[in-house]
Amino acid sequence: MNLGCPYGTHRVINPKGVFPQPAQSIDNDFSTLYDNEILIDVEVLNIDSASFTQIKTQAEGDSEKIGQIILETITQRGKQHNPVTGSGGMLIGKVKAIGSALHNRDLKVGDRIATLVSLSLTPLRIDKILAVHKDIDQVEVQGEAILFESGIYAKLPADMPQKLALAVLDVAGAPAQTAKIVKPGDTVVVIGGGGKSGLLCLHEACKRAGVTGKVIGISHSKAGVQRMRDSGLPVIPLQGDARDALWVLKEIERLTEGKLADLTLNMVNIPHTELGSILATKNKGTVYFFSMATSFTAAALGAEGIGKDVTMLVGNGYTEGHSEIALAIMRENPRLREIYESTYA
Amino acid sequence: MNLGCPYGTHRVINPKGVFPQPAQSIDNDFSTLYDNEILIDVEVLNIDSASFTQIKTQAEGDSEKIGQIILETITQRGKQHNPVTGSGGMLIGKVKAIGSALHNRDLKVGDRIATLVSLSLTPLRIDKILAVHKDIDQVEVQGEAILFESGIYAKLPADMPQKLALAVLDVAGAPAQTAKIVKPGDTVVVIGGGGKSGLLCLHEACKRAGVTGKVIGISHSKAGVQRMRDSGLPVIPLQGDARDALWVLKEIERLTEGKLADLTLNMVNIPHTELGSILATKNKGTVYFFSMATSFTAAALGAEGIGKDVTMLVGNGYTEGHSEIALAIMRENPRLREIYESTYA
Repeated sequence: MNLGCPYGTHRVINPKGVFPQPAQSIDNDFSTLYDNEILIDVEVLNIDSASFTQIKTQAEGDSEKIGQIILETITQRGKQHNPVTGSGGMLIGKVKAIGSALHNRDLKVGDRIATLVSLSLTPLRIDKILAVHKDIDQVEVQGEAILFESGIYAKLPADMPQKLALAVLDVAGAPAQTAKIVKPGDTVVVIGGGGKSGLLCLHEACKRAGVTGKVIGISHSKAGVQRMRDSGLPVIPLQGDARDALWVLKEIERLTEGKLADLTLNMVNIPHTELGSILATKNKGTVYFFSMATSFTAAALGAEGIGKDVTMLVGNGYTEGHSEIALAIMRENPRLREIYESTYA
Repeated sequence: MNLGCPYGTHRVINPKGVFPQPAQSIDNDFSTLYDNEILIDVEVLNIDSASFTQIKTQAEGDSEKIGQIILETITQRGKQHNPVTGSGGMLIGKVKAIGSALHNRDLKVGDRIATLVSLSLTPLRIDKILAVHKDIDQVEVQGEAILFESGIYAKLPADMPQKLALAVLDVAGAPAQTAKIVKPGDTVVVIGGGGKSGLLCLHEACKRAGVTGKVIGISHSKAGVQRMRDSGLPVIPLQGDARDALWVLKEIERLTEGKLADLTLNMVNIPHTELGSILATKNKGTVYFFSMATSFTAAALGAEGIGKDVTMLVGNGYTEGHSEIALAIMRENPRLREIYESTYA
């Protein structure tokens, strides 16, 4: 068998010896495939928001120029890896070929999938740009891409619109991790509970903590609190600023008779909420940071500074079965699906 | 009882409503004590290395000027919180008074303690600077300081020199966390095993994994590998660059017959070692990041990018009993104590 590296280093051109993500350029010649690669007929690029904003600004909002910039990047790098922001996105397409070493996968030629690894490491060739959708950061294309053996993906479900599935898959890691970590009877605090990932986490937290548990959701906005209420979940909603660590502490003390949370999930995309998350949590409890705005040192030194013996986890966007777990929420909770369709899809 | 906030917010002057660490200035008037405060007769300030280097540079190496700069900071802020680096350090002193609310503590007036919370949040008054020791970042002083109820400290042991105890206490969190997380039979990789905290972690990893376990230590330097050998611990030493993620993967695969590590501890203070740490670890294994050079996003996106289902922990410098666990290593392992005395104390 002609096996490539599971992580795709066999397609790295420059510099040699690094992984595809940090590489300057990777090989997007698909005339020869390795036996542990999956070839995809690409239909849509879902460009990451930071990257698309940068491209749109550089192109002064001109759709044709946006397309040109994307084509130039791919010509130079063999992947849609924005040289300014460093970020990528994901793609949607149909499986065109599956390497012989991957035939035990639950996947067949013709399946429509979304890749869940970044475009910044995905070998990609674009033959034609069909349409640029500036309002939703998407580009329709004709082209091909490769998924490496380690590359994660999700089959797009038949029972929901593609846009809804993509919105859910975008944040699938957090609810799946929540499902795995919450135990019956737990008190759980979700900071940023009214947001895109927070709402899915609230669903899983309520489900797993059960009737003997307690789930508290914090949102900075009235709209977020309203979404938590509209979800129909047995959540205690709080409105306030999670950067105000003392406020968080006092409110969680009040709502838990001073016992604090077994588990605090941080889902907000603003900095300086580490200390509030730690203070909301009881000794020997767990804080799960999913926010990409988390500062490693603020978390580590924050806990030490107040002498708090908590386990702090770095949110891993991947866990086994994460896309199935997240998509199932849309089937289990019609009210949440309604909120998702009107707000995020 | 006249109780202050366990976290010391009652002594914050400016801005109101924040914690003592981020505060601009805190109250160092000790004529009235709260019933949950501990008053300390300060003997030595152990200034954090980044801070001392900045002060020394600003003072052009002049000892008297170093003292002046420190006095100015304390006059302005009520704490030794370096306004340039933002960092602090720790102090050594004798307990002078214990608030009535803390009388159940295993502590008495006259005990010599080291504070393990940062000077950047510790109310401090200096009456006189006695000596500046430029080579070891220490300043002998006459003065007083306050420990808040949540402030952690360690009693200095009678059976080892103060310098040795301080060197161990400086990194006490990591070996204590290691002791709590390693299970018999585990395969453990310590990246940065030849360093100050790495060596203590190797001791605990070997002890807890036991004869059915396997402990591998990686150091970038010959000297680090030699220290691992000299420790007498049953460690498999490896020399190489942990930033080379592929090299780490190949070596750990080789040494574990492809099974990889149950637990990887990252103790190196250089950036870009997150991916190597993740690759060294098996699916469903754990990566413990103690390095302050860890990038939260590099860890989170690194695991997702290669589809690795690992639990990633943020190193908490505090865990219950951490100073006792770390100091005990010096008694359990005379060869490690020898290395520590000649290298770090």
